[in-house]
Order: sequence, then C-alpha cells, then structure tokens
Amino acid sequence: MSVRLPQVGGVYIQMEDEMASMNAVLGASWAGMKAMTTTSGPGFSLMMENLGLGVMLETPCVLVNIQRAGPSTGLPTLVGQQDMMQARWGSHGSYEIIALSPSSPQEIFDLTITAFDLSEKYRVPVLVMSDEVVGHMSEKVVMPHVPPESLVNRERPQVKPEEYLPYKTNGSLIPPMALAGEGYHFHVTGLTHDERGYPVMTAEAQDRLIRRLVDKIRLNRNDIITYKETEVEDADIVVCAYGITTRIAQFAVRMARDKGIRAGLLQLITIWPFAEERIKELSVQAKAFVVPEINYGQIVLEVERCAGDKARTVLVPHMGGGVHSPETILEAIQEVAR
Amino acid sequence: MSVRLPQVGGVYIQMEDEMASMNAVLGASWAGMKAMTTTSGPGFSLMMENLGLGVMLETPCVLVNIQRAGPSTGLPTLVGQQDMMQARWGSHGSYEIIALSPSSPQEIFDLTITAFDLSEKYRVPVLVMSDEVVGHMSEKVVMPHVPPESLVNRERPQVKPEEYLPYKTNGSLIPPMALAGEGYHFHVTGLTHDERGYPVMTAEAQDRLIRRLVDKIRLNRNDIITYKETEVEDADIVVCAYGITTRIAQFAVRMARDKGIRAGLLQLITIWPFAEERIKELSVQAKAFVVPEINYGQIVLEVERCAGDKARTVLVPHMGGGVHSPETILEAIQEVAR
Amino acid sequence: MSVRLPQVGGVYIQMEDEMASMNAVLGASWAGMKAMTTTSGPGFSLMMENLGLGVMLETPCVLVNIQRAGPSTGLPTLVGQQDMMQARWGSHGSYEIIALSPSSPQEIFDLTITAFDLSEKYRVPVLVMSDEVVGHMSEKVVMPHVPPESLVNRERPQVKPEEYLPYKTNGSLIPPMALAGEGYHFHVTGLTHDERGYPVMTAEAQDRLIRRLVDKIRLNRNDIITYKETEVEDADIVVCAYGITTRIAQFAVRMARDKGIRAGLLQLITIWPFAEERIKELSVQAKAFVVPEINYGQIVLEVERCAGDKARTVLVPHMGGGVHSPETILEAIQEVAR
Amino acid sequence: MSVRLPQVGGVYIQMEDEMASMNAVLGASWAGMKAMTTTSGPGFSLMMENLGLGVMLETPCVLVNIQRAGPSTGLPTLVGQQDMMQARWGSHGSYEIIALSPSSPQEIFDLTITAFDLSEKYRVPVLVMSDEVVGHMSEKVVMPHVPPESLVNRERPQVKPEEYLPYKTNGSLIPPMALAGEGYHFHVTGLTHDERGYPVMTAEAQDRLIRRLVDKIRLNRNDIITYKETEVEDADIVVCAYGITTRIAQFAVRMARDKGIRAGLLQLITIWPFAEERIKELSVQAKAFVVPEINYGQIVLEVERCAGDKARTVLVPHMGGGVHSPETILEAIQEVAR
Repeated sequence: MSVRLPQVGGVYIQMEDEMASMNAVLGASWAGMKAMTTTSGPGFSLMMENLGLGVMLETPCVLVNIQRAGPSTGLPTLVGQQDMMQARWGSHGSYEIIALSPSSPQEIFDLTITAFDLSEKYRVPVLVMSDEVVGHMSEKVVMPHVPPESLVNRERPQVKPEEYLPYKTNGSLIPPMALAGEGYHFHVTGLTHDERGYPVMTAEAQDRLIRRLVDKIRLNRNDIITYKETEVEDADIVVCAYGITTRIAQFAVRMARDKGIRAGLLQLITIWPFAEERIKELSVQAKAFVVPEINYGQIVLEVERCAGDKARTVLVPHMGGGVHSPETILEAIQEVAR
Repeated sequence: MSVRLPQVGGVYIQMEDEMASMNAVLGASWAGMKAMTTTSGPGFSLMMENLGLGVMLETPCVLVNIQRAGPSTGLPTLVGQQDMMQARWGSHGSYEIIALSPSSPQEIFDLTITAFDLSEKYRVPVLVMSDEVVGHMSEKVVMPHVPPESLVNRERPQVKPEEYLPYKTNGSLIPPMALAGEGYHFHVTGLTHDERGYPVMTAEAQDRLIRRLVDKIRLNRNDIITYKETEVEDADIVVCAYGITTRIAQFAVRMARDKGIRAGLLQLITIWPFAEERIKELSVQAKAFVVPEINYGQIVLEVERCAGDKARTVLVPHMGGGVHSPETILEAIQEVAR
Repeated sequence: MSVRLPQVGGVYIQMEDEMASMNAVLGASWAGMKAMTTTSGPGFSLMMENLGLGVMLETPCVLVNIQRAGPSTGLPTLVGQQDMMQARWGSHGSYEIIALSPSSPQEIFDLTITAFDLSEKYRVPVLVMSDEVVGHMSEKVVMPHVPPESLVNRERPQVKPEEYLPYKTNGSLIPPMALAGEGYHFHVTGLTHDERGYPVMTAEAQDRLIRRLVDKIRLNRNDIITYKETEVEDADIVVCAYGITTRIAQFAVRMARDKGIRAGLLQLITIWPFAEERIKELSVQAKAFVVPEINYGQIVLEVERCAGDKARTVLVPHMGGGVHSPETILEAIQEVAR
Repeated sequence: MSVRLPQVGGVYIQMEDEMASMNAVLGASWAGMKAMTTTSGPGFSLMMENLGLGVMLETPCVLVNIQRAGPSTGLPTLVGQQDMMQARWGSHGSYEIIALSPSSPQEIFDLTITAFDLSEKYRVPVLVMSDEVVGHMSEKVVMPHVPPESLVNRERPQVKPEEYLPYKTNGSLIPPMALAGEGYHFHVTGLTHDERGYPVMTAEAQDRLIRRLVDKIRLNRNDIITYKETEVEDADIVVCAYGITTRIAQFAVRMARDKGIRAGLLQLITIWPFAEERIKELSVQAKAFVVPEINYGQIVLEVERCAGDKARTVLVPHMGGGVHSPETILEAIQEVAR
C-alpha cells in the first residue's frame, strides 16, 4: 500500500501503533478522505477504543481485520475466525456497527468498495472481517469498471455555514457531514452531545443520540444485509458459513447432495447487523443449521438464537491454525440428517 | 486505594495508562500477588488486549469495570450497563472468561472476594462488572470475618523445579503455577504454546491449548455460576436482571404481584459463563422473560437464545445516564402478562 | 527509596520513563513537596527538556545524576564525569542553573540538603552531579541533626490571593511561590510570560524574564559557590578537581609535596555557576592548573578561560570506566613543575 | 518537504515525536540513505539522547535546528541563538560533533550539502544551527550545479563480508560502513564496543573507542573548520558573529570604519569544532573581540578562552525575540576602541 497508494493519488501513512492508526483514519475522514487501516490479532483489540470513537463521531471509515488464531499473540500468521463477536461487541457502550466477510480475493476487492459505500452512507465505521487464508490467497480478481458516480459519498450540508448544526438530521437518521477546512463550524467530541456537537451530560441527550446511532443501522438492516445462497430452496439442512469456511462448506454440501441429503449453503456476507430475519425464515423450512467456524462458537450463537426451537443448530468448531476438512462438515450434516 | 492498601500490607501502583495497568496486574500476579485494577468506559476497551494476554497466560487477576454510559467518552460519570457483551467478547481470539455483577456495596465486597477465589482456582482473569450507581452508592457493608484459610489460592507445583512443566495439567484442566523467583523455570508467552510454555505454531498445539482454556471454564460452569431468585417458583413472568437494575426490578415484581401477576425475579450474579441451563429450565415453566438493561440489548440476546420459542423474551432498554423507573419494567410485565 | 520514603512520611512514585519522572517532580513541587529524581546516562539526556521547563517555571527541585561513561548507553555501570557541561548547557535556550558535585557518601548526604536549600531559595532546579564510584561507595556517613527550621523553604506569598501575581518579584529577583490548592490563582507556562504568568510573545517580555532568570543566579553567585582548598596558600601548581577525582588528586598532591613541589588542591563543590573569580585569583599566584577529569576535557575549558594567559592549564583526561591513578596526576604536576 | 521529497525520488516520513524522528533518521542512514530531520526549541532537547546514539554508532546524518528564544517553550516562533552550546554539550558522555551556522538562505542551501558531506566523510551527525530569522527569510538562492560525483559518500567496505569488522579502521580514524541488507554482518549498539561492534565493558575498550570518536573530529579540525573574514587584516577590533547576527554585525563594522575605527568581521561558519587557532592568531593582532549573540553569553566563552589575556572579549547579548540593532554592536565597538 505504501508504494501503490501514492501512484494513484492516495496517501499512505505509517503510524507508531494501532491506536494512532485508528485515530489517523478518523482524522483523515474528517478531512474529507476515504480512509482505512488494516490489522490482525492484538492490533484489532488495540483499535477497539478508537473504533468506538469513530461510531460516536459518526465517522465514515473502513477497518480490515485479517483474522488469525488467538487469543493474545496466538498463531501469527495462521488462520482464525475468532474476532467475529468482537467485531460487534469489542468496544464499550451501546452501539451498532457494520461488518462484512469476504471469502475470496474477488470478494475482498468488491466488499471493500461496498464497505466504503456503506460507511459513507451511514456514517459509521465498517469492518471487513477477512481471515488469513483469504488474505494470503492468490486468485484471479476482475477489477470492475467502477464509474466514480456509482460510489457513495457522505451527504454534504446544503445549508449555509452559519445555519449548520453538525449533528442535526433531516428526514433520515444520518446528519450531513461538513469537512474540516470548509468554513463550517463543528465540534467533534466522544462525549454525549447534542445537534451542535456540544457535550450534554443528561440521560435525555444520551437517549436521543444513542437511539439514533443504533437505529440508523437497525432500521436500515434490509438495505445493509447481503448473503448468498446455494441450493437452499429445498434444503433440510442449511450450512451457514462465512469467509474461507464458505468454500469448504461448499464441498461438504456437494458431497451431502451426492449422498442424497438435501443440504444447502447460506453464505453470510454481512455479518453485522445479523441476517436475523433470513435465519428465522429458513428455520421454518429447514430442520437443522450446521455452523462451521474457525473458533469455539461465535456466530453459531446468533444462528441458535434466531432458529429458536424450530430448527436444531449445530456448531462445527475449529480452534484455528488451519481450516476444516470438508469431511468434518459433512459428518455434522450427516449426523443431523439422521 | 493508594492510601488504604499500604496500611494493610498491600501495594498501590499508579501506572501511566490502562494498558500499563493491566500489564502491571499480570506481572504482579506472576510475582505471587493477588492483583486487581479498576476502570470505566474507554479504559475498559484499552485493557482488552492485555486481558486476552491474561487469559492466554492463565494469570489469576481481577478487573473491575464500574460501567458508565457510552460508546466512547459518553457520559462520565453517569450509569450504564453497556459493556456486558464486551466483557465476554472484547478481546480477540477464542476464549472464555468469568464475569460477576454486584447489585450493592455488600455484593461488591463479597463478589470481589469471590472473583479472586475463582480467578485463583481457574487461573483466569475475573471481571467484576459493576455500574456507576452501585459504584457510588453509600450503604451498610458488613465485613465478614474471612479466615485466610477459607480463601482460595492458586495451586502450586508439587514437583521439583527440574521436573516442572509450567503448562502441564494433572487430572484437572488447570496447571499448577510457579511464581517468579522461586527457582522454577518457566516461559510465559502470548503465543500458542505447549506444556513447557514454548511457542508451537501448529493447529494441533492450538487445538490442545484453546480447548483446555475454554473447557476449564465451560466444564466447570456449574461450580462457577450463581444467581438469586425471588418468587420464581410459581412465576409466569421472570424478570431477569443484574447489577443496579435488579433493585428496581424488585419493585416492579412486587408491584406486579400486587396486581395479581405471577412475576418473579432472577438476578444474574455470574454473567459469564451464562446461566444457560437455568434459563432453559425456566423457559419451560414461564411464558415470558422481561429483561431490563441499561443498554440497547445485550444480555437479552442470551436469554432469548436460551429461551428459544418456549418463552417470549422482551427487552426493556434504557440508553444510560439514569436507571429505569419501576413503572417502565412493570409496564413490560403487564404487557407480556396479557 | 521506594521502601524508605513511605516510612518517613515521604512518597515514592515510579513513572513510566525519564520524561514523566522529571515532570512528576515538577508537579510535586508545585503541590508543595520537596521533590527529586535520580538518573544516569541516557536518562539524563531524556530529562533535559523538562529540566528547562523547571527553569522556566522557577520550580524548586533536585535532580541527581550518578554519572557513568558515555556517550549513549556507554558503560553501564562504570564511572564517568562526562555530563558536567551538559549539566550547564543540556537544555535549549538561555538559562543558568546550579550544580553541585560530591566526592563522598557524606558529601552526597550533605550536598543533597544543600541542593534542596538552594533550590528553594532561588526557585531553580539544582543538580547533584555525582559519579558511579561515589554513588556505589560504602563509607561512614554521619547523619547530622538538622533542625527543621534550619532548612530553607521557598518564600511564600504575603499578599491576599486576589493581589497575588505569581511572577512578581519584590526586592529580590525571586518571586514568592503559591502552591496548588491554596486558593491563589496562578498560571504556569513554559512560554515566555509576564508577572501574571500569562504568555507574552515579545522581545521585551523575553528580555525582562530571561535576564531575571539568569541574573538571580549570576548575581548571587557568591552566596552559591563553595569549594574546598588543601595546601593552596603557597601553591605553584593547583590541581582543580571534583567528585571522585578529588580523592585521587589528594594523593597526587601529597606525593608532589613529598617531592618538594608546591602543589595544592582546589575541590570544586559548586560546579555551576563556575568559581570564576577564585580561579582568576589563583591564576595570579600559581603558574599552572592541572585538571584531572573522567572525560576528554570539560571543566578544564572553564579553568582555561578563567586562567587566561596568566597560568598554564593542563588537562589530565580519563575516558571513563575507571578512575585516574594518582601517578598519572602526579606526572602532570611534575611536568608543569619543570 | 512532504510534497517535495517524493517528487525528486526522496522519502518523507512523519514520526510521532522528536525521539522517533531522530531514531528514524539513524535507521534510514543505516539503510543507506542520506537522512535528515529538523526541529526547534524543545524538540532539539528531545533529540539529544538519540543524537548521542548517532555519535556512538557513527551514523552519518544531518539535524537542523532553526533556533528560537527559550528556555522551554519560550517564544515560538521568534528568533534566538541559544542552543549553540547545547549543540556541543547537549547529550551525555564524551564526544565531539560538527555544527555549522548559515547566515542566509543561500548558506542554508550550501551548508546543508556541506553538512551531508562532512557527515558522510567523518561518520558523525552534523548539526545545521540556523535561527528563525534566516529560517523564514525569502531571498534569492542560486541552486548550484552539483555533479553527483562531487558529493561525498561514506566509505564502503572493500573486504568480503566474512572479513568485515564493522568498527575496524584502516589508516584513517573512520571505519568503512556496510549497509543493512547488503550481506555484511554487523552489530550496532550504543554500548561501548570493539571492532566487531560487540559490547565490551572495560575501561580499555572505552579508551580505545572514545579517543577515536573524539580524535577523528579534533585531528581533522583544519579540514572541517571554515569561516569568512571581512576587513580583518588590519583590524584592531574583531567582531565575531554567526548566523543572522553576522548580517547586522556587517553594518556595525561598516559604521565603525566610517568613524575611523579599524573594525573587522569574523563570521564563524563552522561553530564546532571551534575555530580556536584562528581566534588565537587574531588575539595577537587585535586588541578586542566583540561578540554579539542572541543569547546571554555562549560562544563568547570560547572566544574569551582562546583570546586569553592577549585581547579583551566583550559580549553584546540579546535575550531573543528580535535581533540586535547595528547601533548596539557599534556602541560596543566604540567602547572597546577607546
């Protein structure tokens, strides 16, 4: 990136640590740039505080986590999918966030664009939760022609500077965003604030602000959530996977079909907000969900919650440092198929 | 604490930031001390990386979070219960942790002792997830006579130094712990390691280590989990609460009973690991759970997951900066009672 | 110190690095404490910025440097006397400072008290420039009875808070000092400031402030400067030494006298401000100065400057990691005696 | 610089603070780059530790100080010449360094090239000690055609990697320098080291190393020292100045000549090592030196030392925030001319 970005008019900056990196990303965004950083393992934990700052300041930006196995230093640099819940819950306080999970270099490319689009649209940090295997994979990537006008840019203020209130919304739940140096006065603080951006230390201000920050994601979840389905229409058993695990699950589903089991694959692309409604629908049709994850049970908890007692939910865990074999997933399919 | 600890033979040390504080706690524990730190808001996020290090090194210690409303700087210092999921998921990688939630000064006192006991027994950081209202409350506290021999201390090696393997277990899932300076050689690393404590970068080592780290909590959950129940035996509606919210829920339950509604109160004392089995049992008996939280929905997700379709689960959220009124909770009880 | 200070009503605080240590010392002084820190080698360089801050804020405090051989990490922990010029010139900007040099444990004890007295009297950081050999020496120390009223304390404001100007002097060049928390308003800044402590960015304000900061030391040099003389009255050759080197020079002087050479010893106790007038006087009487130093020529430059062409000045350098032999110094004496 | 350097094949890197900047410069030099940084005021003090590291590692690099008035934050950004002694003595330990002082934008340009040349030749950090007025001045600068082969580059090892000793000299006092990544093994440490670069904690190793580090500058001083003289041949009174003060002194000398006083101007270009021999020669011819400085007496001390009793030395101080008027300097000339 340090070589490539300057070649295409971008800027690369090496910060002294992960906290500074996340802060620099926020600062760059307020200066009008589309900014991102990328990390793994402990670096992701170190970014949690300022990720929350980004949520509170409603700062468009993208944070990529190429997950490895943990906890702590763990296995650098061998694969894990163990920060999926941290992506949702890793910073303190009440908030919602958007997280996407690519399963191929092509999806990394495409979803990074999507991540920026969602981030600009909803003024929220967006996470790209990849993993080490997809991160190190060499595969054909088709660079699509993306006409600049098809990219989403943050809404800009239409009022005159003297009428501008930096956190005043207008119809939607997302306030237009002025940029540093344009002449609009604004005040940016991690404290609970009012429409002017000034701190207000009351439960009322907190209620107004946090409801909006959360609801701008929750109420737009149908716009945000994407997934891919393969042979799900008639499936008794739905394998629910994401990231690199999707690709192994595909084999397992194929093998199950070959054995006459009606298995299908649901690839979660948007991880957060969670595809709650789709899981609920499928739980009526299917008799079981099989959830392979390179962790000891994270997204499976959400699947289980949404499936309720209508469908069984089964975790196929892998502790990390490698990926599942298709046979391991197949076994779980066969077992619930009995 | 800086005044009191030296008076009773303890040591207080002021570190330069929250990362250093969490690290100093780990170091003190390896030197044989029972060590703790306390924080709130952004400080908790800043401790997440080294909390995971503590999990990986199996370091007994206690971390107290007096929760305020967030995200980011939020409302210092007004109440929140918004870091409950972060307590479980805030550090990267696969792990389990123990978290307790006191609802009174007396419980803060008692549960801090319990936290140290559990931490020493299971060699895992234990969180005391209090909140600002309980944290600032003045109330009678009875200091129990605690005979030193009733306190739990980490198991110590019984073998000679030359036979000691720092991460070798023996029957239980918890290895005996030598202390710095005693003559036992040991190697302590956040990397995935073997029984000697040496880094081993394989999926097999990861599987062996992480399964043990997680299972030592999961398989002992019945020993760890505590809760208090009030009028639950015949309850149709179970209010599930923790921390300061328990005390308001008590009023609401009382008011509901006065109106002829068979309501009961389940106070979660151990938050993590989650009282899954008890919720499942109650979901058969009760027709609904009402979950008041000073957040926009955290523990309610776990209740909902465990209740499945057997009982309805209803969140009563509060964004923070204040507590629920009993009437708000009562309303929710009445609504589900209909 | 961490054990001893609390026993006698003091406070010990471990900071994260040398910059923080020097800052904590300044802060403690403004809170009314007599505060000191101690360092060696690179730590001394790291304190230079905040030492200058202490000069600008006129903050009484003591900084001890147990010199080792350098530059850079050099020889930890073997002796040097290589920071003698840095003591005077190591921070940026125009200033004067006080530095003392003890040659024995007893002098370390006594001169540390003197250092605090001078620091309180002149509101300036005072350096105790010891060296590793004296620092590690075990020798009898007589703890004198020091009646508290014999210690010097900073002059306190006699006016009412509303009349107080924190940098207003009154007859002397040293302003009375209010302490944090006493009700006196004051403003403390490293910027050039007026009597109120407010920044004033003009050459006039700079002239007024810096002249006073420098002159309060220069004009009181006769009160500050101390030295010890042995057999100097009739000396043709004056050995000028400080710190550990004094003790070896004593032998050399004795040996020279035994050989019929009229040698004497001038021990510099106050290094800065420099004993300019005494050297000038002696340069009339003596025909040469011999200056042994554990460096490649520092204080010798000042001796040479003051001696002018009246007396010859000869350096006896030692690069550090050990001390001179008396014979080396004797040789230099003999050589200039010819 | 951040815009310009990449345009001409250079690299600009923004570090988090002055310590990191100085370290990055050293690292860049070891990677084969000609590297520099620039600072002012407190930043210069913060670089002192790592400047000493650069001396110890014999790392070619350039550090520019655009001096302002101090101490501490002082007068940003108004002129001073107050770090002249700090340039020589600001880091701990025994060492010599090279410092140049430009008096115009043209000299800044030319002397920066000279600084790099000297730095490469002698493997020592070279300081360009400018001041705020020269630093902010707009004036015609003629960019000379500098053929690359006319630039000095550090001597490179002629031996095979297996025969290379990184601190072995060969005839000269300066060891050839291998670069990181070329296949030569070397060890770089701030500790006292031998020819292999390995730490050796003895007085002998210290003596061998420090004598060489100091002597490589001292013994080559005639190659290093430059100055400019105007009307000095027949001068009774020599004004000795550097930096911006030279330009005012020129007026004063002219005015003195107009009044029939035989005044001349000695502009010190190389400040360190000091032009000791030239001052000594002139002190025989002249009856007085007048030394205007924007400080309260720094370089004047060296002039006085070298002049001895042969010629009078008079300081014309200015506390900073502005420059001398020519009249002030003229007055001093007239006074000594009487």
